[in-house]
Amino acid sequence: MADNLKNSILEATREVIPGSGRAGLHEPELKGNEIAYLTRCIESSWVSYLGEYVERFELELAQVTNTKHAVVMVNGTVALHAALVVAGVKPDDEVLVPSLTFVASANAVSHCQAIPHFIDSEEQTLGLDPDALEAHLGQIAEMRDGACVNRQTGRIIRAVIPVHIFGHPVRMKELQRVASKYNLVIVEDAAESLGSQMNGRPLGGDGLMGVLSFNGNKIVTTGEGGAVVTNDEEIAARLKHLTTTAKTPHAYEFNHDEIAYNYRMPNINAAVGCAQLEHLDDFIKRKRQLADRYARAFAAIDGVQVFTEPEGAASNYWLNAILLDRSNADARNEVLEHLIADKLQCRPVWTPMHKLPIYESAPRASLEVCEDIAARLINLPSSPCLAEI
Amino acid sequence: MADNLKNSILEATREVIPGSGRAGLHEPELKGNEIAYLTRCIESSWVSYLGEYVERFELELAQVTNTKHAVVMVNGTVALHAALVVAGVKPDDEVLVPSLTFVASANAVSHCQAIPHFIDSEEQTLGLDPDALEAHLGQIAEMRDGACVNRQTGRIIRAVIPVHIFGHPVRMKELQRVASKYNLVIVEDAAESLGSQMNGRPLGGDGLMGVLSFNGNKIVTTGEGGAVVTNDEEIAARLKHLTTTAKTPHAYEFNHDEIAYNYRMPNINAAVGCAQLEHLDDFIKRKRQLADRYARAFAAIDGVQVFTEPEGAASNYWLNAILLDRSNADARNEVLEHLIADKLQCRPVWTPMHKLPIYESAPRASLEVCEDIAARLINLPSSPCLAEI
Repeated sequence: MADNLKNSILEATREVIPGSGRAGLHEPELKGNEIAYLTRCIESSWVSYLGEYVERFELELAQVTNTKHAVVMVNGTVALHAALVVAGVKPDDEVLVPSLTFVASANAVSHCQAIPHFIDSEEQTLGLDPDALEAHLGQIAEMRDGACVNRQTGRIIRAVIPVHIFGHPVRMKELQRVASKYNLVIVEDAAESLGSQMNGRPLGGDGLMGVLSFNGNKIVTTGEGGAVVTNDEEIAARLKHLTTTAKTPHAYEFNHDEIAYNYRMPNINAAVGCAQLEHLDDFIKRKRQLADRYARAFAAIDGVQVFTEPEGAASNYWLNAILLDRSNADARNEVLEHLIADKLQCRPVWTPMHKLPIYESAPRASLEVCEDIAARLINLPSSPCLAEI
Repeated sequence: MADNLKNSILEATREVIPGSGRAGLHEPELKGNEIAYLTRCIESSWVSYLGEYVERFELELAQVTNTKHAVVMVNGTVALHAALVVAGVKPDDEVLVPSLTFVASANAVSHCQAIPHFIDSEEQTLGLDPDALEAHLGQIAEMRDGACVNRQTGRIIRAVIPVHIFGHPVRMKELQRVASKYNLVIVEDAAESLGSQMNGRPLGGDGLMGVLSFNGNKIVTTGEGGAVVTNDEEIAARLKHLTTTAKTPHAYEFNHDEIAYNYRMPNINAAVGCAQLEHLDDFIKRKRQLADRYARAFAAIDGVQVFTEPEGAASNYWLNAILLDRSNADARNEVLEHLIADKLQCRPVWTPMHKLPIYESAPRASLEVCEDIAARLINLPSSPCLAEI
């Protein structure tokens, strides 16, 4: 049975990616103005954190996410950390995070000396389940002086981080209702979802802040990079100040009015980002074509489903995913190794955060759906170039 | 008197920088292989944190600093933070730092939830004074179970950060003796001193770790960038692990064995660094020529001295500095503004850390020399290109 399954999954994948060549999980495509813009940086000597591309990239990111402001930083992890600090997350607060996410979502909470509190996901979106969140808070939380307090730990639950897994939108309307009920700040982790839309609106602007990532395997890369987008002018100014050493303006004196960070994105990285953004629409178009081809190739195969975007969504399909039927979950590693042996760079979803020893003592809701998804999910090669083959 | 002084200082500076054009404080020179190496990154798609230039830059930085290992990161501030964590600095520890330094030296301590403890500087090197440190520890510290404890606060004093100000070496031998006596880890802040030498040996390798910076105004730039160098293989491995999300090796599983950071330097930034390093000897040669020309131009001027390297040192003269005589300290801002009005980008030294409200409650030694230097010092334009005019 496992043999049949792994062979038919390999065949379906190879129907989409013909031949026997290697296919990476997500490789960047840098065929636009990257070299031209970099050359301009070098020839002008504007290579560091001030420069035309930093300003332009921030303007364009705000446009793409339909927000008013963007502040670029060196990567998504530090961008999330800065966003949480500005959101008012204090040491010993709790922050609600899906357990099914990349470790950065939880680590950024820890970097505030706060504690991640893990919430279940849903199969429909792969993201945090607002209904499960509401039920969980109903059991463990109460409002005291306008703050949501975890009765079990006595700590304030300050914020919630919905993560748009593989580019697919969390049910933000439902989450906003729950967040409002419990006075939780929403910081959207849109690291994987640049260009994804829900009901025609781009993701990233539904929380107080949204966090983007541009590392090498993202849909748009700056080498490494990140940003925080927001509609709030004061918050944008505070983010810029906090991530650029909090130097106060003066002709020559060096004063700093808070203990701040250096998270500045260099102009050369922003230059690559500007060149990449010029192709975002094309990348999305091809990645959606690729997702469509996977869906067709797997349609007739028993025992496995291709994950497709939730209703109303137009996802960027950052990483394509298949879910084995529950009865085939035991075969996940065998299937994975069969694909990898054929030079197809596939992987399981991240180990859920609550399964990592570093977070074994973190507070949590029931995480059944998360564990169920993690046991059955396999990501398939998803580079935009694969749509052209 | 102030009029005479400011005019003769302007004249002397304009003798070195002829004409009436603008001169920046320290502008990068990017006339080597920067574009070629960047093009290679883009064409090969290796733009993120893995790639040939990351490996090469690390090897070359180890060579240049005469150490065994280098780990590159996104900037000097996070490199210092990572080094302190690996040095064993724990929340509520104290770390000895000169008050006369850029704010990053103190902030990196705060980022460990530790407390900077400010130490005086000496006029001979502009850096931390080992004798003053020893006298201060003699008054306030005692050894308990092998740890240096501040009797006044009850906290452990874990480490000391000598900063080689403007590229001039701290008296490391004397500091090593004091550090050894009090069991303090030395983390060298060599952010400003790449290429400087003491008695023929490059700076950066005298502590357990040394920290470098490559931001836009440093002698070698990667846009923004930093590194930690060390002779200890285990420490190097630990630094790499801690700054790259602490992912454990596996063919496809995502596990992380500590709450770690993403401080990875992208390959494109390392590519610029490799191209820059090819010119380090030339940059140093020209910057030392420039320092020599300032020394000669100011030799006959009363009331001000050019700072020259300590005996035994061959400094990179990152930023040239003049020190007004004490009797002229009141005229510092007037002189500064006179130079700036002539399009010469000059500046005072940083506001001493203990004068910033953010660090007003930090423990400290007597800081008389630091305050005296800060009141009288002016940095002059120091770009390597100025030596060629």
